[in-house]
Amino acid sequence: MDLLKKKIRDEGVILSNSVLKVDSFLNHQIDPVLMKEIGREFARLFQNEKITKVLTVESSGIAPGLMTAIQLGVPVVFARKRKSLTLADDLLTASVYSFTKQETNEISVSRKYVTSDDKVLIIDDFLANGQAALGLAEIVQKAGAKVAGFGIVIEKSFQKGSELLRSKGFRVESLARIDSLEDGLVQFIENESEVVNV
Amino acid sequence: MDLLKKKIRDEGVILSNSVLKVDSFLNHQIDPVLMKEIGREFARLFQNEKITKVLTVESSGIAPGLMTAIQLGVPVVFARKRKSLTLADDLLTASVYSFTKQETNEISVSRKYVTSDDKVLIIDDFLANGQAALGLAEIVQKAGAKVAGFGIVIEKSFQKGSELLRSKGFRVESLARIDSLEDGLVQFIENESEVVNV
Repeated sequence: MDLLKKKIRDEGVILSNSVLKVDSFLNHQIDPVLMKEIGREFARLFQNEKITKVLTVESSGIAPGLMTAIQLGVPVVFARKRKSLTLADDLLTASVYSFTKQETNEISVSRKYVTSDDKVLIIDDFLANGQAALGLAEIVQKAGAKVAGFGIVIEKSFQKGSELLRSKGFRVESLARIDSLEDGLVQFIENESEVVNV
Repeated sequence: MDLLKKKIRDEGVILSNSVLKVDSFLNHQIDPVLMKEIGREFARLFQNEKITKVLTVESSGIAPGLMTAIQLGVPVVFARKRKSLTLADDLLTASVYSFTKQETNEISVSRKYVTSDDKVLIIDDFLANGQAALGLAEIVQKAGAKVAGFGIVIEKSFQKGSELLRSKGFRVESLARIDSLEDGLVQFIENESEVVNV
């Protein structure tokens, strides 16, 4: 997605060989034009999948998840990272380890909002080691629902999440795939056919 | 806003005389049709205010904040409830006490994204005791920016937040104003002119 890649090139800040900060347009301040485009693109990619629900995780997944849900005309559910006092229902949970924050969070979704009838599109802002993505898939599977695939805004292809999800047979659609952040430069994977064994 | 009131009546769950759970359409699962309407209505109410930025707080404020920002054609910034490892910038912060969770969180916004040139519309899902709203206003004022007003999805008018904000001269627009949750019934304030000393 060209608009997204341009934003990453122009405004992304490389903090290390593995950390890209995109808080001017994606996960602190949100660019409304870009976010609409992101929703449209995920909806286009999964338009034939008969999606009944979008699932994401707070907080940075909410914006792309919502825009996709609006385009598809289905509800979006966001998993919570800790239990809310007013979420005392029967919960579907999964443990998610964050390599960035070096901590494990339990993510949870009320059993009411993902059911065995659902075909779920999982959306997230980043795919790095894949732990959040796998946790969301685990929740969908615990509900007896089907994972239609993953829509990822920015995939850090040099980390293992993308390979992990694809090796489990999941469809992963990433709007920007980053091959490297080394030497302070963002290198995108411009053409998937060039990439062997991702 | 009739669609919102209908949703509250049909799907809201009253947990106590002060707690209304609306996680089927607002803050866990999100109804895309309702959320678009919410954004349109806030944009309409503040259309003459020359808003340059929408400010909200994670997580439940992001959806209404984003939809309003899209309608107004401006960026939305969401304050974080704890510091992120990749948000190491110069931060504008405020302390917010949650009566529901009985804990104090520091909310923070990067100084880069709210500046003295901004006229800021603050959006949140609930207004109860007004602590989060006041914290957001404090951040805007610390940036030297102007608060154009507050757009609140659900105001619990029987708690003190609404009176507190209005007494400070802030414009508060709430899409549903709840007068009482007693006896397991949601009583709306249907007409503001009927209400004395709110």
